Formats: sequence, C-alpha cells, structure tokens
Amino acid sequence: MGGSVRLFGTAGIRGRYLRKVTPLLAFQVGLALAGYVGSGGSIVVAHDVRTTSPLLASMAASGVMAGGVDAILVGQAPLPAASYSVVRSGSKAGIMVTASHNPPWDNGIKIVDGKGMELTRIEEEELESIIEAGVEGYLADWNSVGILRIEREMLSYYMEDIIARASVKGGGDLSVAVDCANGAASGVTPIILRSIGVSRVYTLNCHPDGHFPGRHPEPRPDVLKPFIKASSALGVHAFIAHDGDADRTALGVPGYGFVKQDLVIALLAWWKLREKRGSVVVSVDVGSEVEEVVEELGGSIIRSRLGKIHEKLLQEADAVLAAEPWKLIDPDWGLWVDGIYQAALIAHISLSTRKSPRELLDMLPYYPSARVSYVLGGENERDRLYEQVVEELSHSLTGSAVGILPIDGVRIDYEDGSWLLVRKSGTEPKLRVYAQAREEERLVNLLARVHRIVAETASRAGIRLSSKEEHISLPPGGSRGFRGRNALL
Amino acid sequence: MGGSVRLFGTAGIRGRYLRKVTPLLAFQVGLALAGYVGSGGSIVVAHDVRTTSPLLASMAASGVMAGGVDAILVGQAPLPAASYSVVRSGSKAGIMVTASHNPPWDNGIKIVDGKGMELTRIEEEELESIIEAGVEGYLADWNSVGILRIEREMLSYYMEDIIARASVKGGGDLSVAVDCANGAASGVTPIILRSIGVSRVYTLNCHPDGHFPGRHPEPRPDVLKPFIKASSALGVHAFIAHDGDADRTALGVPGYGFVKQDLVIALLAWWKLREKRGSVVVSVDVGSEVEEVVEELGGSIIRSRLGKIHEKLLQEADAVLAAEPWKLIDPDWGLWVDGIYQAALIAHISLSTRKSPRELLDMLPYYPSARVSYVLGGENERDRLYEQVVEELSHSLTGSAVGILPIDGVRIDYEDGSWLLVRKSGTEPKLRVYAQAREEERLVNLLARVHRIVAETASRAGIRLSSKEEHISLPPGGSRGFRGRNALL
Amino acid sequence: MGGSVRLFGTAGIRGRYLRKVTPLLAFQVGLALAGYVGSGGSIVVAHDVRTTSPLLASMAASGVMAGGVDAILVGQAPLPAASYSVVRSGSKAGIMVTASHNPPWDNGIKIVDGKGMELTRIEEEELESIIEAGVEGYLADWNSVGILRIEREMLSYYMEDIIARASVKGGGDLSVAVDCANGAASGVTPIILRSIGVSRVYTLNCHPDGHFPGRHPEPRPDVLKPFIKASSALGVHAFIAHDGDADRTALGVPGYGFVKQDLVIALLAWWKLREKRGSVVVSVDVGSEVEEVVEELGGSIIRSRLGKIHEKLLQEADAVLAAEPWKLIDPDWGLWVDGIYQAALIAHISLSTRKSPRELLDMLPYYPSARVSYVLGGENERDRLYEQVVEELSHSLTGSAVGILPIDGVRIDYEDGSWLLVRKSGTEPKLRVYAQAREEERLVNLLARVHRIVAETASRAGIRLSSKEEHISLPPGGSRGFRGRNALL
Amino acid sequence: MGGSVRLFGTAGIRGRYLRKVTPLLAFQVGLALAGYVGSGGSIVVAHDVRTTSPLLASMAASGVMAGGVDAILVGQAPLPAASYSVVRSGSKAGIMVTASHNPPWDNGIKIVDGKGMELTRIEEEELESIIEAGVEGYLADWNSVGILRIEREMLSYYMEDIIARASVKGGGDLSVAVDCANGAASGVTPIILRSIGVSRVYTLNCHPDGHFPGRHPEPRPDVLKPFIKASSALGVHAFIAHDGDADRTALGVPGYGFVKQDLVIALLAWWKLREKRGSVVVSVDVGSEVEEVVEELGGSIIRSRLGKIHEKLLQEADAVLAAEPWKLIDPDWGLWVDGIYQAALIAHISLSTRKSPRELLDMLPYYPSARVSYVLGGENERDRLYEQVVEELSHSLTGSAVGILPIDGVRIDYEDGSWLLVRKSGTEPKLRVYAQAREEERLVNLLARVHRIVAETASRAGIRLSSKEEHISLPPGGSRGFRGRNALL
Repeated sequence: MGGSVRLFGTAGIRGRYLRKVTPLLAFQVGLALAGYVGSGGSIVVAHDVRTTSPLLASMAASGVMAGGVDAILVGQAPLPAASYSVVRSGSKAGIMVTASHNPPWDNGIKIVDGKGMELTRIEEEELESIIEAGVEGYLADWNSVGILRIEREMLSYYMEDIIARASVKGGGDLSVAVDCANGAASGVTPIILRSIGVSRVYTLNCHPDGHFPGRHPEPRPDVLKPFIKASSALGVHAFIAHDGDADRTALGVPGYGFVKQDLVIALLAWWKLREKRGSVVVSVDVGSEVEEVVEELGGSIIRSRLGKIHEKLLQEADAVLAAEPWKLIDPDWGLWVDGIYQAALIAHISLSTRKSPRELLDMLPYYPSARVSYVLGGENERDRLYEQVVEELSHSLTGSAVGILPIDGVRIDYEDGSWLLVRKSGTEPKLRVYAQAREEERLVNLLARVHRIVAETASRAGIRLSSKEEHISLPPGGSRGFRGRNALL
Repeated sequence: MGGSVRLFGTAGIRGRYLRKVTPLLAFQVGLALAGYVGSGGSIVVAHDVRTTSPLLASMAASGVMAGGVDAILVGQAPLPAASYSVVRSGSKAGIMVTASHNPPWDNGIKIVDGKGMELTRIEEEELESIIEAGVEGYLADWNSVGILRIEREMLSYYMEDIIARASVKGGGDLSVAVDCANGAASGVTPIILRSIGVSRVYTLNCHPDGHFPGRHPEPRPDVLKPFIKASSALGVHAFIAHDGDADRTALGVPGYGFVKQDLVIALLAWWKLREKRGSVVVSVDVGSEVEEVVEELGGSIIRSRLGKIHEKLLQEADAVLAAEPWKLIDPDWGLWVDGIYQAALIAHISLSTRKSPRELLDMLPYYPSARVSYVLGGENERDRLYEQVVEELSHSLTGSAVGILPIDGVRIDYEDGSWLLVRKSGTEPKLRVYAQAREEERLVNLLARVHRIVAETASRAGIRLSSKEEHISLPPGGSRGFRGRNALL
Repeated sequence: MGGSVRLFGTAGIRGRYLRKVTPLLAFQVGLALAGYVGSGGSIVVAHDVRTTSPLLASMAASGVMAGGVDAILVGQAPLPAASYSVVRSGSKAGIMVTASHNPPWDNGIKIVDGKGMELTRIEEEELESIIEAGVEGYLADWNSVGILRIEREMLSYYMEDIIARASVKGGGDLSVAVDCANGAASGVTPIILRSIGVSRVYTLNCHPDGHFPGRHPEPRPDVLKPFIKASSALGVHAFIAHDGDADRTALGVPGYGFVKQDLVIALLAWWKLREKRGSVVVSVDVGSEVEEVVEELGGSIIRSRLGKIHEKLLQEADAVLAAEPWKLIDPDWGLWVDGIYQAALIAHISLSTRKSPRELLDMLPYYPSARVSYVLGGENERDRLYEQVVEELSHSLTGSAVGILPIDGVRIDYEDGSWLLVRKSGTEPKLRVYAQAREEERLVNLLARVHRIVAETASRAGIRLSSKEEHISLPPGGSRGFRGRNALL
Repeated sequence: MGGSVRLFGTAGIRGRYLRKVTPLLAFQVGLALAGYVGSGGSIVVAHDVRTTSPLLASMAASGVMAGGVDAILVGQAPLPAASYSVVRSGSKAGIMVTASHNPPWDNGIKIVDGKGMELTRIEEEELESIIEAGVEGYLADWNSVGILRIEREMLSYYMEDIIARASVKGGGDLSVAVDCANGAASGVTPIILRSIGVSRVYTLNCHPDGHFPGRHPEPRPDVLKPFIKASSALGVHAFIAHDGDADRTALGVPGYGFVKQDLVIALLAWWKLREKRGSVVVSVDVGSEVEEVVEELGGSIIRSRLGKIHEKLLQEADAVLAAEPWKLIDPDWGLWVDGIYQAALIAHISLSTRKSPRELLDMLPYYPSARVSYVLGGENERDRLYEQVVEELSHSLTGSAVGILPIDGVRIDYEDGSWLLVRKSGTEPKLRVYAQAREEERLVNLLARVHRIVAETASRAGIRLSSKEEHISLPPGGSRGFRGRNALL
C-alpha cells in the first residue's frame, strides 16, 4: 500500500484508476473501515457516475461485509446524498466512491462518519495505519460476515426531504438552467428545483455519463463559459452548475456572469441570519462582503483554517452557517457540504422573496479582491519563503492593522476594511496571497507592496519564483456596500 | 368504456389522464390483450417518463397477469426499446404507456405485436370490441394467473445492440447536441452517440421529468428554435431532438436550421441503397428529393398511404427502408419506427464518411415545397369539398400530368418534376394540399391555381373556408439536384 | 360492490378469488384507504404466498398510488412483518393481501392502522361506506399520484429486531421442528430460531408455495397430527406450526401432543409477569390456568370480548400481555398479533431457563375443559335460543356463582373454580358453550346440566337442534395446580 | 496463492473459508477467468446458500468486471441452474460459488465453460497458471471495465424449462417428500415437482440456511436415515434428497430404503432408451444392473474413467445418457450434472407410467455388490501396493475372465457376470475394490480371494494395512434379473 506515502489527500483518496486507485484498494478501505468501526451495524456505500465507480463500490462493499459489517448499498448518488443516507439509516459510517471533479480516468474514495461528516485528519491517519499494517486481521469468520442491503430509495428520500424544506407555494417567476457535468446530481438537482416551484428548468449536461462528454467536471469559470453563453440564449434568470459529485455549486447570473463565491456565501448568510441569530463560520480567505452582511444582521464571524470549517462548526453551538469558497454547510440540514441543498436554497430565497437572483445580488456589498499564487521549485522552497515573508510582513505591513490572525497562514486586517492573507498551498509548491480592499486602487497598492516583499525576500533567500498567477475580481459597477438588513424584503 | 366511441386513435389510445385514460382502462387493455393473445407466454410492459406512467403500467401489467399471461416489466424505456424487448424476449405482444409528444397531463397506450410492429387497424378493432364487450370473461382462475418478471436489463441490451451496429472506430470529428425533451430517450440517445464515436455530446433537456420542464415534447420547429440557438452557442455540427417517447427525431444543422424531413429521408435512403439494392417505401406526401436519390441509386419508390408504411413494408420483400415524415423503419434493424436508431444512423453516416452533417446535406437535392391546409367548419364540409375539388382537378390540372395516384387522396405528378397532393386530414376538419416544384416560381404558380380551384369550388358548394394555413420551404441557396451516387464517398 | 353486504368479516375481507376477492376490489380498497388517510405520506403493501397475492398486491398498491399516496411495497411477508413495516417506515396504514389459513383458491385483504394494529369495526365501516359510495372521487390528478417504493429489506429488519430481543447466548440444548404450512413465515421463523440459539432446527413444509402442497394452512390438531408424528421421528423437544400468514402459532410437545392454547398463554403470561408487574388482557373464553398463573404472580386479569383484545389493550396502560386463543399481543414488541414473535419467545424462554418445553409445561396448572357447539337452522333461531337459554340460566345455574360477566355472551364463575360461558357464534348459526372445572366429574356434570337446559329451552321454543359438537380436553396426568411463582427458576 | 499447490481439486476449488478460500481468491479467479476468455461478452456468477457465498460471489463478479467482461449476476441458485444460465444468456463461462456438500464453514468455486460443462483438467491448469503468475496484468483500463447485470429471472426460466419438459397431465397418484439440505434447491425442486403433477409434496429442510441447521449437506445413507424415517410417517411414495448445490440426488423408496445409485442409473437408462436408441456412458464402477438394462434395450455401454463422463460424452455422438454414481447427464437437456432435473425425471417416469417408484424399481435387475477400501499409511504405500496387487491379480484371478479393462484401475469381468475393479483413490491414501456377482456366495468368495491377495501382497511388500472398510449391498428379496424391455409398460 505504499509505506509512508499518505493515502488520504485533502479530498480523501484520489488518483488515476489502476495506478493509485485499484479495486483491491477499495476492498482494503472497506475492510479497514469495518475494522475501525467494529463488527455489527452498517456502513453506507454509494458512488458517482464514473465507469469504474460501480466496480470500486462493489469492492468497497465487499470489504465492509468481509469485515463483519452490513453494507447498505445506496448505488449511484451525489456525495451529499451519501452523507444523508448514513444519518437516515443510523449507519456507523459511509464510503463514497468518487473523484469529484477529476477527469474520467481518475477515481477516489471519500469517507464520512456516522454524522455524515468528513473524517478529521486524525481519523484518516488511523485508517491509513490500519491499511498500511495489513487488513487481513479484520476479516470476519464465516458465521459473522456482513450482508448486503440494497436500499435504492435513499436518494429519493434525500430529494423529498430537501423539497419539503425548500418548497415555495405561489412563489415568483424564476427560470433556471442547470448543468450537472453529467455527474451524480443529473437527475437530482433539476427535479428538486422544479418541485420546489422553479417555473422553468432547462438542463445542460444532465444525463449521467462517466465519460463526461459535455465538459470537464470542475465548475471553473473557463470551463463554464460556453454553457453560461448557451443558457443566456434561453433567457434564464440563473445558471447553476455542479461538479461531478455535487458538493460544489457554481452560479451564473445575467449581469454578473460567473458569480464569485463570496457573494454566494454572503447571500446565504443573509438569509440564514434573517431567520435566526447566530454566528457564521468562515475560512480565513473569505472576503469582506460576508463579514459586512453578517455584522449588519447582528451575527458574528468565526474564522477557521481552510478545509476545516466542519470541525470548527462542531465547536460553535450557535452557528447558523459554515462556509468557505465551494463549501457550504447549513447545520439545520446536515453537517456535510451539500451543493444540491445549496442550489435549492438559492432558488428558495429567490422564490420566497420574489426577487430574481440578479436583484438579490444587486443588494449585496461587492468589493475588489485578488488571489495571487507564487509558483516555486518545491515544497521546501515554499516553506522557507513562507517563513521569511511572514517575518518580513510582520514588520512592514502591519502599520494600520486592526487585527492579525495567525491561523492557516497570516491574515492582516486593516482599519480601512482591506485585508491580506498569506499562506502556503496545502497540495502544491505555491505561496498564496489573498487580498481585498474597498477600492481597486488600494487593492492594487496592497498587492504591489506584497509583491515587492515577496520578490525581495525570495531574492535574498536565493529562491527562484518560477511564475506568478494573479486573478483580480472587480465589481462590474464599482464598489458598493450592503444596502441594509431589510433591503431585500 | 363509451359504446361506439373509437378507443384507438391514429396513435393508439391517447388523451387526458382521468378523463379518457384511467387506471382502470389500463387494466382493461392489459386484460383484453392477454385474452386476445391467449393464456401462457408473456407480454412486455414499458412506459415513458410521465408522472402517471408507472401507475398505468402497473395497472396494465396487472391486467396482463390477471389474464393468465406473464408480464415482462421493462420499466421506463423509449417506445422503440419496448418493441425491441418484445422481439428479444420472444413475447407475444407489447404494451407501451406513453402519450408521445402530448402535454404532461395526458397519457396513452400503444400496443405492438410479437414483431414489435404497430397493430393494424383490424387488430385494433378486435381489441376494441373485446374491451367494449367487457373483459371480465378473460380473468384467469387462481391457479393460472400470470407472474411478474422484472427485466431491467432490456434497455441496456437495446442500447448495446445499436452501439454494436453503429459504432465507428477512428471516425471523423463530430460534435452533437441532443435534446430529449426530458423524455424516455434522455439517458439513451446521448450514451449511444458517445459510445459509437461522436467526439463531443452535449445534452439539453436530457434528465427524465414527466413535467417536461424544459420544452413541449413535440419537436416542432417553433418549439426547438431556442434550443437550436443555444446549441449554436456550443458550436456543434448537429442538433438532434426527440419527442417524448423517441420514435421521432428532428435534426438541426448549421446553415440549414431545422432540417426538413424529406432531406433526412433522402440521406438515409442514400446510405441504405449504397449498401444494398432494393426498394424504398414512402408515403404519398414524401417529396422529390427522396425520389431523385432513390432512382439515381437504382432503387425503386413504393408509395403507401400515410401512417401505413409499416403494413406496406411487410408486402415488399426487398425494401431497404420505409419512411414518411417523422417515421422511419429500417427492416434490417426492426419493424418499428425508431428515432434513437435513426439518430445513431445519422451519426454513423457522418463518422463513417468523415463528412459533417452539413456536408452530407449539401450533396443532396433540395427543391421548394409547400404544405397548405384549408380549415373548414366540420368533417362533413371537408368531405364534400374534397370530392368536388378532386373532380375539378381531374379536369383542369392534369394537362401535363405523367401520373395520377389515387391512394390516400389524389397525387398528380407532372412532366417537369413538380407534383401536387390533395387529401383530407384524418383527424381534423381540414383539406390538405402538398406541392413541390423544381423552382419557386412554378411552385407558387401551382399553389395559386389550386387555390383558385379550391376557392371557387367552395363558393359554388356554399362551403365556408374558415382560414388557410400555408407553410413553404425554400432551399437556402436555391434549388439543386443530387450530386450523383458517389458524390459523398 | 354489493350494496348492504358487509365487505369486512371478522378477519378482514376474505373469500374465493374472482368471486368475492377480485383484482378490481383490491384496487378499490387501495384507493379507498388512500382517500381515507388523505393524500401524501405512504401506505405499506405486503402479501402472502398465494398465487393471486402478487397480482392483488399490485392492484392494491396501484390503488394507493392512484389515490395520491406513496405505496411502500414490502413484497412477500408474514402478516406481523407487514405491521412492523408500517411502524418502522412511519406509514399511515398497511394493506396485507392474505387469506390466512383459507384454502389456496381463496384470498383476502387485511388492513392495519399506523400503529400496525387491526382496524376497529368503526374504521372498517367507514372504509366500507367509501367503497360502497364509489371510489372514483379519490383519484388524484396527474401531478399528484403517489409513487412506488420498493423496500425489500423490511422483512430482514423485522427478523433482526426479533433476533436482537430473543437471542440467548450459551442457552440450553433445544431442538425444534418448524412447520410453516408453506406460507409466508417459511424463510422467517426457522432462521430466527436458529439465530437466537436453538441448537437444531428441522423444517417441514417450509418452502413457500401458494398451492399449499404439504398441508391445509390451518394449524388444527387434525391437520397437524401426521407432522407431529414425523417430527417425533426426529426426536425434537418441540414442534412449532404456523398458519399461512403466521399470526397463529401451534405448539406440539412430547407427552402433550398438540398443546392447548390456554397453556401457551399461561406460559407466556408467567414469563412476562416475572419481568414486570401488570395486567393481562384475555378474552372471556380463556381458562382457569391463565387466571391461576396471573394471580399467583400478582397480576390481574382483564376480560375482553372475543376478537377485541387489541382494542381493550389500548385502554389498559399497564397490560403486559393480551391474549386469546390463537392471538397473542406483547405490547413491548408491538400492537399486533405476531405468531413469529410468539415462536421466538417460547424458544427464548426455554433457552433462557434451560428447561425443555415439556418441563416448562409440566409446571403449569392444567384442568379439564370443554367446548360445545349447538348447530341451529339459522341466525334467527340462534339468537332466539340464546336469549331464552340465558334467561333460563340466570334462574337455575347461578346458585353458587361468585361472578357473572355479561360481555360477549354470559360467563358464570363458581366458587369451586369452575366456570361456564354461553355465547352466540359471530359467523355461524351456532350457540357455543365453554366450560371448565377443577375435576372431570364436575365438568361432566356442569355440561349435562347445561345440555338439559338448552334441550328443554329449544324444545319449548320449537327450535330444532341440528347437531351438537363437543370437544373435551383432559390433562394427561390428571388435574393439577400451578407449582408456584418461582417453580421454574 | 501457494506456488505449486494445486488450486483446483476434483470438484473445483474448495476448502475452509479464510484458510483456502478467501475473498481475494474469488476476485482473482473472476479476473483470471475474464482474462482467459478475453474481454467483451459476459460471465455468469451464481452462488449457493452459504453465509460467505454472497460475499465471494460479489468478489468474483468484481473480478470479472475488472477484467473487462460483464458479470451476469444470477444470485442464489443451484449449480445446474448456473450452467443453464450460461447457455441461455450466451455467456462465455460461469462461476459458481459453492462448496457443495461440505460443512458450512467451507466454501469453494466451480467454473463451467460456455456450454455449462465442467472445465477439463487442462483448462483448469491454464487458469491455475494465470492465477499463479499474478492476475494484475488482466485488469482492464477505466473505459473498458465490465458492467454488472442483475438477471434475477434466470432461475425462474430454468424451472419453467424443466416443468415444460417433465409435466404430466392426468398422471398417476404420487406423493413425495423432498429434503434439500437447506441448500440452493430449497425453493426449486419442490415447486418443480408440484408443478409437473406430483399429487402431494412434503418438504424437509427446505428453507435455505447456510448454517445447515437440519442435517449435513451430504446425502449419505447415515445422514438421511432419520429423514427417511420421518418421511415414512407421512406415508410417501418416495423421498428425494439433494446435497447443498443440488447436483446430487438421493432416492429413498419404501421397501428399498436408501436406493443404491446403480438402480437409479438403470431406471433412467431404461427410460431414455425407450425413447430413442443410443449408447450410455458410464464410469468403470457402475454395476451389472445398468449393463443388463442397457443391453436388453439394444443400447451399448461406453466405459469412462471416474469423474470424466462429461468429457467422454462429448466424443459419443449418439449417447442418450452419461452417468456415474451421484452424477447424471442427459445431453437432451444439457451437458451438466443436474440433480434437480434428475428428480423431475424420476417423478416424470412415475407419473407417466402410473407406476409408483417402488413398482418401477421392482422390475429392475438387482444383484449383490460390494465396495471395499483398504486404508494405508500414505499415498506412496497406496501406489506401491496398487502396482503389486494388479500384477498379482493378473496371474491369479483372470482364469475365467471375459474382459480386462485397464482404465482408471483394472476391471476384470467374468463369464458368470461377476466383476471386480481395483483402483487407487484419487484423493485419499486408500486402495479401493469394487465387486459384484449374480449371487451373494460368489461375491463373498470373490472378495475373500481379493482380500487374500491384498493381504499377502501387503505383507510381502512390508506395507501396513491400517484398516479395511467394507460395504456390501444385498437385494432385499434376493438376486433378480431384468423383467424384460417392456415389463414396465
């Protein structure tokens, strides 16, 4: 199984089929998980639409059974529906065979606990060491192997539950184009949207096909561009796109094009805080728009490391939402990232308020922001440069700082509302800088100063900067603030 | 069951759910069909995506079982796949619950015989009289009721069979957008096209939903317009659209827009006659383009009444194709109209020849044609006017006629290749005129003369013409002939 | 539907297939029940092994769907598992297609409420009047018909739940022969018994077959005799037999042969009252053995009408058991009669106490008892005779009475522990007399006196007694009392 | 996988679960078989009732899919139904997870070719070497893994096919008790027998349970004794018992008890030869009764090695039957051993002839026969002793021999109809002697002479005979000959 090589990455086990992800590995993971949770009870097994997914799910379920635990086979389903099935069936854990937005020749395995929540890193390490040490010891004897339970209705119960929560009787007129990347949400999100009251639902790439014949399953702006254009020809109010397993949701709106994630989070935070008081957990890279909306509505912002909002959420009893770009958890619904629920919630807000998505966005604050990546030769260079840049920053860029937050990199917040975040990439040899300001000029200025520091520090340390990637997002009509807590009612 | 009211229309039983088409009717039809074919053996039951279809299929299957015949439940499937399942399983007949392209609140029942072929009118009448006389007498006793066989793999075998026939290894580059009207072909045609070698398959309205949230299920030019436009934004070589149960296929091609049916028939006739000699059965309203292509390739045209090409086909041992607008039967494949096979065949021709659909169409003949409907007060007026117009035509419009064909109306063919068909609508109080000429001027002329005759005859007979509907199709680049039998190779 | 004829009998709808019980009736019942419970939610549908049961279940489920309620299809299952499924799935009601112990050409329908409990007579009457008035008005429109949910795991969950409750680790040696009458418990009771710890499980007539090729499905002494003999050849400690749908359980034990129901009830009452205090609900015909055991253990006896113990149970908060011959409800488990649970409980008691069934029975009291039926010309004669006999009895047989109980006939209890019950049969033109005494002589005496009164009264009233059926049960080793509350520990 | 250890034994792969037979091995066998037959097409996977069988079948099917071949999952089924499914579905091969009559903690894998026939030793060796060399090279890439096809109706088609062939309308009265050892024929043989016309079908141990709670799954005389006794209590005409996977059928008949295999073979040979001329393939140990019947009816006997009748059958175009004790192949039906078909055929003969099984047996010849095993210290001793005994025999016991057959040991046939077969056990350290004579005295004599030779030879060679096992079968009413070809009509 590869000695000291880490099996689980930031998104579970993922890689090229037959190279990293093999049928045998799926069996071992199933068996190891059965051993980990102990014999008796059940583990849910679901899978995405990839050509190799039914096979890997069959192997994982076999592993579970071989380990003395019943396997509840949910079949093809989006990732959040797998989490839902774990909770609904009272299972001890769930295994989802998916490589999310990777290309069709890849596959992977995600594991969730009995609450449907991603494993913590510690739990992953325990599983890794079980697999590394050899799973044979967990094989149950002939009279205690688990059985296979086919539970095909689970996905339908998941859909019904969302429909019951998001349905709006006599809501406004709303037409939506949905693009599921030919993934696991193909027959799910469109049906939910129509059922809750969306007037017209057009679909693009919504037949399941593990070859992904329509588009790359990652819902990036460049990938979605032609489909946003095609949906414009249909005159819709919103374009909603998922990745392959539907934990992610991208939004396109006329006048906004591809809507940046901070605006989506701000919209949902606004909606949740109108319903009840509480805090909003966000990762350190989430921008000012969210902060402004949350504070206007009397909520509080809790900052978390990237990729760890779910763990933070557990510690915050009064949290009404946890979000980072591409990940949104509504604890009223469940402790998992759910792109389908998110899509339904956006439509629900629009239908309930009788405002189009564009009108909703128009009332939110919107400020310039940037994301810069410095590409380095290796992880070692990355780490060294990061240390020194942080050191340097603490001297030269903290003049007007009103807050310094040292989790997952260093975030510096300034008096004028601008902020800066420097951190190491968790998976690539890159130094990342995030910045935002009330006006474009201040942002450009801030970026220039950071760049100078990075360049000089690198030069001093003899570290070569291979290249720099910079993405700046500007509000189409110029910066603007939030129009107030009741603006949208 | 409505005494003398005819139960089966031109497309089987069809109408508003609960008004004409009820659960009880489905049970009665199932039972009557079991009685008709005799106890023992099996009958296939399949259904489209409508909300009431699973219920009606369950009732029809129950009727079959109650009549002492096994019901092979294929589940949700396109109409042609139901026919295929009948043949593959050696069943005596098939029941398909579908209302094809009707609105979502309608439903219907189609019946096919052991060859997968539509019933003849005589067979339908026999069934009607069984149902009218009361089906109770066909209930089998407790020890001979049929059993239910779930055969979910049938649709997959259907798909595999088409893929095996239409697959092209190393074919040309071809990108296609498919629109299944959220109907029963949603997960079928796109997968087949990708599997046979189509480079890129985009889908529109291809998640099954019996509410038809994207578009009306009839693939008419006006309905398809926005989707042809949206697919243009994706830059495809062809746009393929089905109706709700996928016996129909509409084609959109850049430069042609919505392609007229005669061109599609001509293309397929060309392909089939290149493979082997034989005749082509067409209905009387099929145009000169098909005739020209068939004759150039040494085939012969057999004319049939509208809606009866399948019966004619049985009498023609050497027929390689039978076609009328929206209906295409390839006897090498099966004796049923199959829009999915047709879509695969079009893609197969393009991939095999390495010509884009546009290039293929460019080489076919294309002449001006027209379809005119005179709307009348009732069926009585329609019939009277028809008699007199035909009488009148036989005097004044047969001067240069080279042929007069009196089946299903009267068709007059002229020396210069133009032709005229006058017939009564089978379902509406309309007199229909079809015409075609080599040049637009001649066509306009011909239509004017017909119009004069119709108007004068009506006036003389005291029949009021409520209105006239006229649809003229002109070749975009002017009239043109066929570029020869080997032009496309 | 037969105007004023009562549709539901004492055991639901039951009769000859195609005569009384038709596919159409099953559809109507499903639709009526959907109308009764209101649209939305779900209704469980299950069926026994009869040849017509899958068809009737399909029709009933179709009726449910047509009425706008989801049908949860549990498939072939024993009656108590259907009740269990209703509760587990949170359904509004359940439909069970079964004719219990009737011959194979019969079938029937039983309905349970959301607690899995038989309908009350009032509820049945409401359903009857809905069906009589015509169910068409309850048909839901196209966009609100219910869906079909296949839930095949329900039976397995039912089995697991009983196993978890009845399992004994390291229990005594116990070998059992099970005879399921080829009915719905065939794959259920034997697996449960083996799983809870029974050492050896032999089965007779335990393959499901709706033709009942082994024996009549009613577990009467005469029917079971050859199978008790066959199981003796296998040397088992107990023979357990069900009827077709497994609400009934008959017990055979070496030295006792076919064990009379009062002893079985007494055994279970003993077990339940050892666990916790409470009352035991029994019908008026239950004998002294049960009373003695219950009183010894400090419990109290609550008398109920025959066939109504489930309704009485609801009024008795502290009841630990409700029982009448062939019907046993343990409220800790569920509010339905459950022959499978009963079988498991008997085995559980034997395994837990490490006493064989024979040893258990040996410690219970056992007194002579009798059941006499006077067959009359019709219901009118029955009712008249009953009135007059009761009148007569109140004069001549109440001398030493310590209690007179006028529910469901008249029961007279005497000082010496003997008792007498006179009642009208609910379904046949018969007058029934039940009697029991401490010694055979007293019993014979009592019967003689009753007989004289009946004969004289009939003669006086000019009513002809067609015949008399008399069944007397005597303790094999003579009368005996209970060996005390802790005798068995 | 154990280097040079032979994986396949005489009955495929078989052994203790987790020791010899592991989930991983099942996957490897599936993958190796896929590699062996080549990608594309399908392989059938079925399994018996053992607790570990669904898991191993899931692994084997996964292996098949991973190797690029579709897996047709038939589910739980008797071994012959798996063979039937291979042929019916046009699959390339079949995998059956079963350990036949081994105890519940064992499991195994049998493989059949595209004709449903056992693999030859050469084919097994090819598979073994693939597995030994490592199967990883046969893993198909992501876009060519096989799919899983659930084909649950296969077993039902198998049953229907036998019923259609064996059904007798208006046949004689016949009551049968069936004992399926709680194995895979539990719901199969009883239903078939009732359907073809058996008047009464009682079942013993006919609920499927992988713990085999009723009896050991091997249908030996000692195992079956109590069940034959129990069925006598039911007064049946015949008792039919299977092993766990139903390739074997044992017969019990009143007056005969456990019927010896030679009589069963003789009965079936008689029936087949009455229908058409041809040869009967038998193994060398099959007795005189079969020979006499075959010759009387004008057929010819072809002798084959033990365990190889299926291979011999392929070479004999006119064979009407191939049989050895416990294995019977009717080529009109299929090229596999089929205990269920055999049971149906026996019932069919009885029903058709209106003779009870006892009457049928009464008309067959029946002679004394014996089977003796000399237990030795090891395989080496066995082989040495065998060589020398054969040498010795050729001198001293061939005086009146009319034939010496040196296949699979040495068989000597004498003028008076008696015969002798000496061979080495294929799996144990035993020397086996089979003998038969017209009269008991001659048999005893023959055995005494053989014994003397064996004992002396062993003594001379210094080989210790651990023990001797002797089983002699005598006709209850004394020896008798066949009553002539038409005796039974």
